[in-house]
Amino acid sequence: MSAQTDYKFAGWAGDAPDSIEGKLKWIEYEPKKFAEDDIDIKIQYCGICASDISTLSEGWGPMKDAYPQIVGHEIVGEVVRVGKDTKNGIKMGDIVGVGAQCDSCLKCHYCNKDQENYCSGGMVGTYNGKFSRTSEGSKSWGGYADYWRGPSHFAIPIPEGMDPAEAAPYLCGGGTMYTPLVQHGAGKTAKNIGIIGLGGLGHFGVLLAKSLGCEVTVISHSARKKEDAEKLGASHFLITGDDEAKAFKGHERSLDLIICSSNAPDMNMTAYLSLLRPGGNFILTGVPETGKISDISPFSLIMGNVHIGGSLIASPATLKEMLALVAEKKVHPWIKKWPMDKVNEAVPDMVAGNARYRHVLVNVKNGGKL
Amino acid sequence: MSAQTDYKFAGWAGDAPDSIEGKLKWIEYEPKKFAEDDIDIKIQYCGICASDISTLSEGWGPMKDAYPQIVGHEIVGEVVRVGKDTKNGIKMGDIVGVGAQCDSCLKCHYCNKDQENYCSGGMVGTYNGKFSRTSEGSKSWGGYADYWRGPSHFAIPIPEGMDPAEAAPYLCGGGTMYTPLVQHGAGKTAKNIGIIGLGGLGHFGVLLAKSLGCEVTVISHSARKKEDAEKLGASHFLITGDDEAKAFKGHERSLDLIICSSNAPDMNMTAYLSLLRPGGNFILTGVPETGKISDISPFSLIMGNVHIGGSLIASPATLKEMLALVAEKKVHPWIKKWPMDKVNEAVPDMVAGNARYRHVLVNVKNGGKL
Repeated sequence: MSAQTDYKFAGWAGDAPDSIEGKLKWIEYEPKKFAEDDIDIKIQYCGICASDISTLSEGWGPMKDAYPQIVGHEIVGEVVRVGKDTKNGIKMGDIVGVGAQCDSCLKCHYCNKDQENYCSGGMVGTYNGKFSRTSEGSKSWGGYADYWRGPSHFAIPIPEGMDPAEAAPYLCGGGTMYTPLVQHGAGKTAKNIGIIGLGGLGHFGVLLAKSLGCEVTVISHSARKKEDAEKLGASHFLITGDDEAKAFKGHERSLDLIICSSNAPDMNMTAYLSLLRPGGNFILTGVPETGKISDISPFSLIMGNVHIGGSLIASPATLKEMLALVAEKKVHPWIKKWPMDKVNEAVPDMVAGNARYRHVLVNVKNGGKL
Repeated sequence: MSAQTDYKFAGWAGDAPDSIEGKLKWIEYEPKKFAEDDIDIKIQYCGICASDISTLSEGWGPMKDAYPQIVGHEIVGEVVRVGKDTKNGIKMGDIVGVGAQCDSCLKCHYCNKDQENYCSGGMVGTYNGKFSRTSEGSKSWGGYADYWRGPSHFAIPIPEGMDPAEAAPYLCGGGTMYTPLVQHGAGKTAKNIGIIGLGGLGHFGVLLAKSLGCEVTVISHSARKKEDAEKLGASHFLITGDDEAKAFKGHERSLDLIICSSNAPDMNMTAYLSLLRPGGNFILTGVPETGKISDISPFSLIMGNVHIGGSLIASPATLKEMLALVAEKKVHPWIKKWPMDKVNEAVPDMVAGNARYRHVLVNVKNGGKL
């Protein structure tokens, strides 16, 4: 079953916080030892996610001995090696994707009910993680690279007819928004959805909520992205300015679910919660680099019957469900393709906030199409 | 249909914050003008709720011109007057109860779907409120009294065979705990329930969660009430001491739903949230007199897929459902009866924290039984 490995594992690595300033370096590395349920993927596309930046720049905390780090967890490519226990019916030559998680214990209650993202043993991130189930202690390496190796359980076949470049950013950004949408009944019990922040995640939030049959309100600091929001499918656009309480007057109890993809730490939570109908949820998906949610008034939670929660990426089953939906409904994310060789231009452009709304690296020599 | 009113409206009123120190005074008052959907109740029982204390003592804010105030919103008695539009099939002589809410618009989306407690026009509290739908501007007067007048929509028939003295405290305390239990799937999707604080509300939480088929964990500051918790039906008792994080080690992800009836403002929320399974909810029901929920880490919400929310009292439909359940299952609250004449002993005893777990005032001259 296993193919001969006649390729090298190499990619664009950061070795210091300033690597996001265009200083990623091409390195070779030693992947995990191939286990019989692993696959190797010849990487053709990899989206650039805000997590990549926060990790490399130490925005989420010191990296210590975790450098060098090859980030990227919106990976799509061709299967070039399978093992005898490869899962998901994956065969040589299939086009598959890998998101932000690449392993878990696969035994616990959560893994057994399609919630590997909340595995009791902890999830293994697609980069900056350590494998333990197989090849214990091996580092996980992301997708700004030529090849990827890891458990086939976390590889999702890309639906027939779907543009693989567009599939890539769905695997983290899309799934991160789709998961809380379906968990909280989007299109069923929750018809009016608010999306805070129109960045990479937010743009997926609008597209996905809309494709689930919801009416979408984008909540943004300024009017700058209003036209984009409308083109993406939003029906309403709320501008907060610097006074959310004032901005939300007259919009109380207009939303069933708010998904906050923004990293802003100092939100006026009482004002945001006022937008929710009783039973409503305010769900955080973007992990801020700093800050806590402060001074939530128990009174507003109680009187409003509202909830603040969080949601972490997507499980393989949820990713499959989402890809089937967007393939069927032809929901196209807004992406800009960059040759992977230009990663040291693409990453700084993402850091500068220029992505409208996802940069995707294309590994041309591996068959990726610009 | 209407009976002649040959009775006077009078009750035990507070006219200053120190009224809770045994200084309630018997006064006569003018009730709202009788509307055709109102009833009059000859009060036989009224529970003493923590809200009564927080209102009278200005713990929830200045009363200004709201004194004198007759509190009490766990009222049970005999119907002595009906109008031509009296609802709920209520007849003269029926034994009915009234909880913490006595009116709402009865027209909005929420009123129309059995969520009058979240009425868009705001709820009218059974005391310290003002009527507006009928008898606009009239003050609402509570149940430490001889008679009660108000909308029959909010009067709940007490099930046949149920002790009306026991029914009384279910009408606020019981309903306040039952509502979030059923909203979050207790006994169905939520099997393991945590109850924080074993006071009046908490004791109902244990009884009701148990009667819904759940396994109950009481979380308390000290071991003082452990035996009571077990007698009430709790299977586990977690003692926080002064270090919740330490106390909860080994209990991570053991609960599906936590209902917090405690008023403690400075909880270590990260520690409490660690007790919840993914998808779990931490629901506040007791409105603290002071304090905010501070410094919630977005990270713990996101990684845990957990939610913090609140729930406000119960709707009439929910109260009916709960009373049917506890009547059928013979779920007896722990109450201590006090002659209503002794209200100036009963209230200070409640303030001193001696209730195990609910004091009920008995209006003996109206037929209440000690």
